[in-house]
Amino acid sequence: MAERDAALVAVGPVPDAQLEEAVLRGGASLSPLDSARALVWRGGPDGFPDPLPRHVEWVQLPSAGVERWFAAGLIPQDTHATWTSAAGVYAPQVAEHALTLLLAGVRALPTHFAATSWNSDPAVVDSVHTLRGSTVGIVGAGGIGRALIPLLAALGADVVAVNRSGSPVPGALETLPTSRIDELWPRVDHVVVAAPATTATHHIVNAHALDSLKPTSWVVNIARGPLVDTNALVDALAAGTIGGAGLDVTDPEPLPDDHPLWSLPNAIVTPHVANPPAMHSRAYADFVARNVAHFVHGDELSARIDPVAGY
Amino acid sequence: MAERDAALVAVGPVPDAQLEEAVLRGGASLSPLDSARALVWRGGPDGFPDPLPRHVEWVQLPSAGVERWFAAGLIPQDTHATWTSAAGVYAPQVAEHALTLLLAGVRALPTHFAATSWNSDPAVVDSVHTLRGSTVGIVGAGGIGRALIPLLAALGADVVAVNRSGSPVPGALETLPTSRIDELWPRVDHVVVAAPATTATHHIVNAHALDSLKPTSWVVNIARGPLVDTNALVDALAAGTIGGAGLDVTDPEPLPDDHPLWSLPNAIVTPHVANPPAMHSRAYADFVARNVAHFVHGDELSARIDPVAGY
Repeated sequence: MAERDAALVAVGPVPDAQLEEAVLRGGASLSPLDSARALVWRGGPDGFPDPLPRHVEWVQLPSAGVERWFAAGLIPQDTHATWTSAAGVYAPQVAEHALTLLLAGVRALPTHFAATSWNSDPAVVDSVHTLRGSTVGIVGAGGIGRALIPLLAALGADVVAVNRSGSPVPGALETLPTSRIDELWPRVDHVVVAAPATTATHHIVNAHALDSLKPTSWVVNIARGPLVDTNALVDALAAGTIGGAGLDVTDPEPLPDDHPLWSLPNAIVTPHVANPPAMHSRAYADFVARNVAHFVHGDELSARIDPVAGY
Repeated sequence: MAERDAALVAVGPVPDAQLEEAVLRGGASLSPLDSARALVWRGGPDGFPDPLPRHVEWVQLPSAGVERWFAAGLIPQDTHATWTSAAGVYAPQVAEHALTLLLAGVRALPTHFAATSWNSDPAVVDSVHTLRGSTVGIVGAGGIGRALIPLLAALGADVVAVNRSGSPVPGALETLPTSRIDELWPRVDHVVVAAPATTATHHIVNAHALDSLKPTSWVVNIARGPLVDTNALVDALAAGTIGGAGLDVTDPEPLPDDHPLWSLPNAIVTPHVANPPAMHSRAYADFVARNVAHFVHGDELSARIDPVAGY
């Protein structure tokens, strides 16, 4: 077991029982940083060892996106170490939340929740729809969007994806480049917003987009609040020109107490809980255990960062 | 196109534009019953042609279960015709509703729905769970239960199924016979009830079962109300010994106005809308179009009934 004994892994910046257990589960031994061959990090760039000691061959970072580490100059282009991120680790949980909000809307749960009486009136019964046979637009086909596609496929829904380049996203019926996003709205039954927040995606769901959707369309946002024009959304919800909105993120966020989204019957607001801390920690620990096992066995590590490309 | 011209299909008991369109879509021609080679039925056994004319080679019935047709003596063991049911046709829609109720519970939507303020308190945030890594018990693994398994698999949940015989259900981690159902409750995180209503399944979710579940467990019933002991369920919900219940069927049904299930914050009631009429009709018409196409081309028909076995 020389290989195994030699796999000394440090956890930082502070002791963390869940990650220490994950390191052991992965088949490695715990070690202080000054004798470690690998460093599993939980936290931001602050306090990260700079420069990275020469004996550390592998660094595991806890974020899906690692821009802040590059911005802080912590990952040199000529680094001696292998760096891995947590890309894709949290996406399934967030995709699950997106699906929950979409199904809740399509199946008219807000109406059912508000009911205090058994109501089989056609107005209620006919408000229950299905994702089966529908087309869902996914704006932004990164980890979350890609994790959502097989869930929708299992439910019999088609996906039209939108990404910057328009390069085909696996599992999508079609992928449109952002420049052609206006073709998306009239084609889809529902929209899930899963893009990063950039100047290009600011208010990507605007009044025009909402006008082009169907009166039964649900808009789900699990990405960042400013991707949706909140005022335009409130107008569409109040006018009933779309079916409803399921929002785990809002703009402003937190949503003020007197905001109309709290009282609109076709809005579902969850307080940015798609991937809450306990779920996040467990998913990271499980990923660490798997990646430590790869390290112990000399296998390819998952979610490798490209120090030259910067992601 | 002789084959096609000869495929004369009648729709009964009354004209139905959606089914007539489906017959044409399947490649056949419409015909009155007295010259038809096939009969597509929409309705119950009442008014069904008895005996079935000799020239009718195929009968399509609109129900998944056809006990009533056998009970009425309409399907003789030595029938000259091929009979098909709509078995499996409605299952995906009902499975989608079951998943909606389960996800709504697991993701704490009742709490979020009731909120009128952005609440990031740990009590709220920590009440949001995930199906990922969980084990879901499915009681009754007929069409609906089987349709639910791939949906749960896509979300990273395992399934333990229960059926009469215990013969393995595809996709389930394990299948228990009904006689061992008491082993199910402590093993699973959540339960979906999808069994037929029989004397053997009456109150199959009883006080003992509920006591054996976890304080975070959701119980979903999309089958028949009497499968769950409502009084025991209300007690468990009020005491918080389970996480909650999502019910599309109730006992009594309709649920009276003053019933505690309307006010318990961890109960979601939908008024038997898992497969509402419009969705039902569309699914049946799509199935009819496909089966008519099989008939036209002389291919094997879907959902054949065994006149001797009686189902």
